[in-house]
Amino acid sequence: MKFVIQRDQLMTAVQNVMKAISSRPVVAILSGIKLEARKDGITLTGSDSDISIESYIPAEEEGIIHVDHIEEGSIVLQSKYFPDIVRKLPEQIVEIEVDESLKVTIRSGKAEFNLNGQDAAEYPQLPKLQTDDSFELPIDLLKSLIKQTVFAVSTMETRPILTGVNMRLADQTLTFSATDSHRLASRTVPVTETTNEFSNVVVPGKSLNELNKIMDDSEEKIQISVTNNQILFRTKHLQFLSRLLDGSYPETSRLIPDASKTILYVSTKDLLHTIDRASLLAKEERNNVVRLTTKNNNMVEIASNHPEIGNVTEEVSISSIEGEDLKISFSSKYMIDALKVIDYEEVKIAFTGAMRPFIIQPVEDDSILQLILPVRTY
Amino acid sequence: MKFVIQRDQLMTAVQNVMKAISSRPVVAILSGIKLEARKDGITLTGSDSDISIESYIPAEEEGIIHVDHIEEGSIVLQSKYFPDIVRKLPEQIVEIEVDESLKVTIRSGKAEFNLNGQDAAEYPQLPKLQTDDSFELPIDLLKSLIKQTVFAVSTMETRPILTGVNMRLADQTLTFSATDSHRLASRTVPVTETTNEFSNVVVPGKSLNELNKIMDDSEEKIQISVTNNQILFRTKHLQFLSRLLDGSYPETSRLIPDASKTILYVSTKDLLHTIDRASLLAKEERNNVVRLTTKNNNMVEIASNHPEIGNVTEEVSISSIEGEDLKISFSSKYMIDALKVIDYEEVKIAFTGAMRPFIIQPVEDDSILQLILPVRTY
Repeated sequence: MKFVIQRDQLMTAVQNVMKAISSRPVVAILSGIKLEARKDGITLTGSDSDISIESYIPAEEEGIIHVDHIEEGSIVLQSKYFPDIVRKLPEQIVEIEVDESLKVTIRSGKAEFNLNGQDAAEYPQLPKLQTDDSFELPIDLLKSLIKQTVFAVSTMETRPILTGVNMRLADQTLTFSATDSHRLASRTVPVTETTNEFSNVVVPGKSLNELNKIMDDSEEKIQISVTNNQILFRTKHLQFLSRLLDGSYPETSRLIPDASKTILYVSTKDLLHTIDRASLLAKEERNNVVRLTTKNNNMVEIASNHPEIGNVTEEVSISSIEGEDLKISFSSKYMIDALKVIDYEEVKIAFTGAMRPFIIQPVEDDSILQLILPVRTY
Repeated sequence: MKFVIQRDQLMTAVQNVMKAISSRPVVAILSGIKLEARKDGITLTGSDSDISIESYIPAEEEGIIHVDHIEEGSIVLQSKYFPDIVRKLPEQIVEIEVDESLKVTIRSGKAEFNLNGQDAAEYPQLPKLQTDDSFELPIDLLKSLIKQTVFAVSTMETRPILTGVNMRLADQTLTFSATDSHRLASRTVPVTETTNEFSNVVVPGKSLNELNKIMDDSEEKIQISVTNNQILFRTKHLQFLSRLLDGSYPETSRLIPDASKTILYVSTKDLLHTIDRASLLAKEERNNVVRLTTKNNNMVEIASNHPEIGNVTEEVSISSIEGEDLKISFSSKYMIDALKVIDYEEVKIAFTGAMRPFIIQPVEDDSILQLILPVRTY
């Protein structure tokens, strides 16, 4: 195997596939990066068996040569050393050559590294996706869907299915929802040009977080294909394959109240900052509780009390209020998480009494829905 | 106690004194920040008993009012909560008020925090420095002296005196030196307008690192006063007091060879990057050894070998070489540390054979001296 490549392109591909590599792999060889050279280009692969990422660098694209002097072959290189070596090479032009005894030589400028490679034949075959059904989304929209839901997955292994995000596609509408049973985050988007339908697809939260990290914001399309136990995200040069979680995802729609007794309209940022301040006095307590009380003159009071440290109160102006007065307590962390992912100036919060879940939505966009269960404090 | 202050100024003072506060203080009250209001201004104090920092905000300076509505008094506030509260206050104007029962009220905009303070009378009295002897340095020069030496202090508690930087002042020359017995870093500067002399002042490396962090690069002067067991650094609004280390600092000058057999002249950056690359294959080994070999045509070869991972060799061009050919092995970490703090384009490296310490100095400035003991590899 042999090829000559630009350092920066190789580095980007290495960084992408590294996202899949675990520091404690289930099989030793999965701590390595697989490099495969074919006449048409170079493919790098990283995998922890839950997630597999392939990054492809075409030999030539739009008349520009990216990879040259290719002799076909493949090798596995230790991910502990290879990325740092590539990053610190002295010149842009890098030559990688593998001999019959799996010795790898990396040359750039006057530097020469000789590394012991591993046989690519020992690297597990990645599962091939057995489906032609797929649909497309702009990458930036997919990133929004992930960011607006994935934070709400459960971190507890007691109900493993809740550590994933539920994807549903029906009537050309795609829904992402996540819940840890104390709160729910959901987002829908229309998907045209597909007849694909599914309802019980549950993608591990960790997979979506890694996918979000390696995708740059862009209006380019990403292709999504789903089978019984796997999901594949594919862009021009990147393939991201994740296993799905086993089990039935709970029906979450019944959690959402369809009536409300009090509705507040308030600036997202003002409310976020006020609750952030109210949460300062109880750092250790994971879900530090704050109390919201409606006041006269279009004000609500946010307050928090810590018996030893002290207390904090702050009034925040609201745009308007409809319905009954209200006093309710909830986790400041859940409220902060929900408000942070709403990229709109104003939110509407609909309450159905102090003991019932309440809903936060942008005033101008009901495709985003955040639901939080209150905390009983008296 | 009461005063009204600008949030940003209070924040800077809080951040400065926080540098002295330990998460595991020897006395519980030292986990707090002391605030003292006097008619002329506000003083904040943080201390871990080794280091004490006072930050002063004058009520008025050059006609600008910084602190207003002052009622004198003092209080101690928990450093775990107070800094975050100040940082996140909604408005620039902050009012702090303490009542008779040590309840502290912090108001800004519509936010109000009520905290339980501690009695400032219980806060230890900081030692007062009993000396009028002092000298001055520009702050940026003091920062250079620290950066060029402090990395070489020992991290081992077996010889505690070596965990500090030795300061000497004689014949109007100030010298900082540090050694961990495998390498030595030293820097001298002329100090005029003082008749002060001392030789066995040893400042804990940790103190100098913290001092370096809170001082912004500036040509303003810092005043330095030394007694038997303490050193005080003082700028217009900041006092930094550190204890000194007990014991006799070893005589280091006899380590420095006065003759040499081989002298290399080489670009600081080229050598630094080459050695950095050569060190990549032995990440875990703390002092990863590299080998330097002089070659023909004004080249030296830098090489490193790791039996399992592989090896690396690179040639680096040198400007010139004087004297004998040489093959020598040394810690890449020590060499990288030394080269990083030399802010000159070219260095001169003077060797006295493969088993003797060698010296690195900027070609144009012999006030900086870095010495490294080689490693015996055969």
